[in-house]
Amino acid sequence: MKNRMTRIALARRPQGAPVAEDFAFDHMDLPDPAPGEVLVEVSHLSLDPYMRGRMNDVKSYAPSVGIGETMTGEGVGRVVATNDPRFSVGDLVVGVTGWATHACLSGSALRKLDDSLPPSTALGVLGMPGFTAWASLNAYGRPKAGQTLVVAAATGPVGSMVGQLAKAAGMRTVAIAGGAEKCRIATETFGFDAAIDHRAFDTASALHTAIAEAAPDGIDIYFENVAGMVLEAVIPLLNTFARIPVIGTIAWYNELEDSADRLPMLWRSVLVKRLSINGFIVYDHWDKFDTFLAEVGPKVAAGEIAYLEDVVQGIDKMPAAFAALLEGGNTGKLVVEL
Amino acid sequence: MKNRMTRIALARRPQGAPVAEDFAFDHMDLPDPAPGEVLVEVSHLSLDPYMRGRMNDVKSYAPSVGIGETMTGEGVGRVVATNDPRFSVGDLVVGVTGWATHACLSGSALRKLDDSLPPSTALGVLGMPGFTAWASLNAYGRPKAGQTLVVAAATGPVGSMVGQLAKAAGMRTVAIAGGAEKCRIATETFGFDAAIDHRAFDTASALHTAIAEAAPDGIDIYFENVAGMVLEAVIPLLNTFARIPVIGTIAWYNELEDSADRLPMLWRSVLVKRLSINGFIVYDHWDKFDTFLAEVGPKVAAGEIAYLEDVVQGIDKMPAAFAALLEGGNTGKLVVEL
Repeated sequence: MKNRMTRIALARRPQGAPVAEDFAFDHMDLPDPAPGEVLVEVSHLSLDPYMRGRMNDVKSYAPSVGIGETMTGEGVGRVVATNDPRFSVGDLVVGVTGWATHACLSGSALRKLDDSLPPSTALGVLGMPGFTAWASLNAYGRPKAGQTLVVAAATGPVGSMVGQLAKAAGMRTVAIAGGAEKCRIATETFGFDAAIDHRAFDTASALHTAIAEAAPDGIDIYFENVAGMVLEAVIPLLNTFARIPVIGTIAWYNELEDSADRLPMLWRSVLVKRLSINGFIVYDHWDKFDTFLAEVGPKVAAGEIAYLEDVVQGIDKMPAAFAALLEGGNTGKLVVEL
Repeated sequence: MKNRMTRIALARRPQGAPVAEDFAFDHMDLPDPAPGEVLVEVSHLSLDPYMRGRMNDVKSYAPSVGIGETMTGEGVGRVVATNDPRFSVGDLVVGVTGWATHACLSGSALRKLDDSLPPSTALGVLGMPGFTAWASLNAYGRPKAGQTLVVAAATGPVGSMVGQLAKAAGMRTVAIAGGAEKCRIATETFGFDAAIDHRAFDTASALHTAIAEAAPDGIDIYFENVAGMVLEAVIPLLNTFARIPVIGTIAWYNELEDSADRLPMLWRSVLVKRLSINGFIVYDHWDKFDTFLAEVGPKVAAGEIAYLEDVVQGIDKMPAAFAALLEGGNTGKLVVEL
């Protein structure tokens, strides 16, 4: 049996939640590493929510797993044979092994680990989930001391890292988690200031009330990894200049889109396409007005930038002209000449 | 009549589109400027879509106009009396005069204009609308040569500036406008590469098809100043890393929110609260992984960052463990030990 391996392939595309029949176990001889390749005996495999998306045959940010192909995922293991001189038998490594007991991978696709921490940490707190939390919070969350962060799935590897990083930055941190035990872990193990059990609430408005109590100064960062009812509950509590990094929409993974509600469709696009959406009110930016005038004024004077005015005569015409403006009835900038 | 003025006050809050009865014309004696104040005789008044929002009694980014108060808005005029030594009679100035023939304002609230350009340009191309276009496009649109921009209300003062700035930056520019004449102006006067008459389409999907033809490489910047059907048509055409500055949702100004569709509610929040929403996929950020490990690794080793693992034994348990993960059944990072 030493020269045999097992892998789990995608047998068919799941309808909704995955079931046993969607997967197939294959047994086969161990491959020999080609030049530049390394054979790894896997000791730990990762399971992460993003894998559900890969089981669908839809265009996304990463290719789907094909029918009959090994399910994708990261694993940690020891090198048992190597054809890449940078690795030795016995090295501890992490890489995209797939759901399998062994994997033959290019040495360039593997990262060596030292033995100072448990190997499984390379799949979680110091692997892709922990890095996701750190990188997205820094890039798009922008933690500020004294502000409030809300994160769901707060005892998971991403949410727990987000909460601890935000807390270390001086924020008030509010956890959303499923069940009393997870809420206890959120506050006791991960140091959240408050934890809310979303299972205790049937509606977004009831959940909203609970979050409002836990976040009395409103929400400055909503770290989005679930969507669904939590998102709906959170939106009215967002403060001015709130940030929403969107790293997952797991509540909508197994759902078909509701055609009457365009929010899931937008939200999925935000994630998959890495959209950047920013509300803009000109009053926040007046400090740049002189720069604007210096740059654009000469171009208008020189006729390089065209403009068009729709001039209405007389202050008595203002109400009607305004109503027409809202209906798109004018062409160019609407100005009333007195 | 020389010492009398006229102003237009908000008589009542409009239901939907504003009508004449929502406004009241008042006639009164001219005020005398107090110390630091300047009396301006208005020659041009601005009408802008944002004013509709100010007529509602709802919390927004700027206070509502009170019943009986002068409608808000910018105006240009000449100083006719001054109690601020920085101004002289005859100076041309711009400021928030309100809908009125005269306004008495603090000198600090006025900006002097020179006479090199028509005074009305201070209300449009070189005023708040032009500045809105320039500042929001630079801050959140981030034009890139060779990419595609779509903007609605494209012959208006914001849309036409956006189109010209994007074109000058080397972008393909697509105008959405209402009617054949506006489409002609968009391409001939403002240099858009293509113009689409949204009035020619009854549904978002028909409009979508037309935009797809005009933007064959997809959309990299959707400059949002209308929302409604245009937004719905545009979403599926957005490219990866597309940017959406949201500066107006005029199509939804006069509408009540549809409770089955949460997108208008979110979109209004994006604008009013200046939300920043960013999709995040970890694969775009791997270049920072070493920084993450260097920063967070020692904290995990020192026990300063807690982590929790949920360990399942045996590869045969993977399908069931994965299904449970999607239902939130695990606590902490889910790892399968082989």
